[in-house]
Amino acid sequence: MSHPDRVIRILGIDPGLATVGFGAIECTKTSANLDRVNVLDFGIIKTPAKEEIGQRLKTIYEDLHAVIDEFKPDLVAVEKLFFYRMGNTILVAQARGTIVLVLAQRNANWVEFTPAQVKQALTGYGNAKKDEVQEAVARELSLEVLPKPDDAADALAIALTAWYRV
Amino acid sequence: MSHPDRVIRILGIDPGLATVGFGAIECTKTSANLDRVNVLDFGIIKTPAKEEIGQRLKTIYEDLHAVIDEFKPDLVAVEKLFFYRMGNTILVAQARGTIVLVLAQRNANWVEFTPAQVKQALTGYGNAKKDEVQEAVARELSLEVLPKPDDAADALAIALTAWYRV
Repeated sequence: MSHPDRVIRILGIDPGLATVGFGAIECTKTSANLDRVNVLDFGIIKTPAKEEIGQRLKTIYEDLHAVIDEFKPDLVAVEKLFFYRMGNTILVAQARGTIVLVLAQRNANWVEFTPAQVKQALTGYGNAKKDEVQEAVARELSLEVLPKPDDAADALAIALTAWYRV
Repeated sequence: MSHPDRVIRILGIDPGLATVGFGAIECTKTSANLDRVNVLDFGIIKTPAKEEIGQRLKTIYEDLHAVIDEFKPDLVAVEKLFFYRMGNTILVAQARGTIVLVLAQRNANWVEFTPAQVKQALTGYGNAKKDEVQEAVARELSLEVLPKPDDAADALAIALTAWYRV
């Protein structure tokens, strides 16, 4: 007896104020238990530092709504905020608030992972280097070159983490 | 020769995640230089701690849009974020990001003041106590009782600061 394939779309998001990385993947659970995962797209939302903070948040708000319209994810995975310098943390937290707001408005299922959880999921150990994570992303997604820029690669890593763990 | 009176509406906002205070005042610059200031309304937007963060931000987003619809302020004044405990700061920053986003979406003129600037403007010294600030708010606005809750009183103090300083 065979079961129909189950396809799920996952959107990974790497939050930031200057740059929000996103990466969309499509995962198929087959009846034969031969899971497949494909990249749909990846990229960044950029906001210019010279713009007023409200305008920058407005760009993130509108562009993230557009990204969700385009990919219609079944699940969204967001990297958990960590503390850097205090001033920077407040800026990133304001951007993250905008992202979380959009997810609530879209009634999205969402999960979050720490950077260490992402590294662990992709490479098997929690303090892997950035390029080791990126190579794992490229290998998992059968990409011939490393996905760029880094924030988009990070977003794909977060999406893959959700796929492995959910 | 007389000039027409100039009326400006100012909305003060005291940002927070659990409670956002707001206070709307109407200020009239008369030709005789006898300025008048009246309260329009004050209150709070409350978000329950048991709700998921995105839902709480969604409530702030929707309610603040409704407050702006109601009072149509010419100027909005927001209290500047300060550092408390780190975890709390991140929550408050996410709420503040939502407020700043709404102001950008409404194309609002907005200014911000530190708590010390508000105390200085209302009482003449930067480390006045909370109840001294609240008494000054009540006196300036000819209120017979102190405005409650505290977050709404703070929002009125922020609006008055904008009126004195702008």
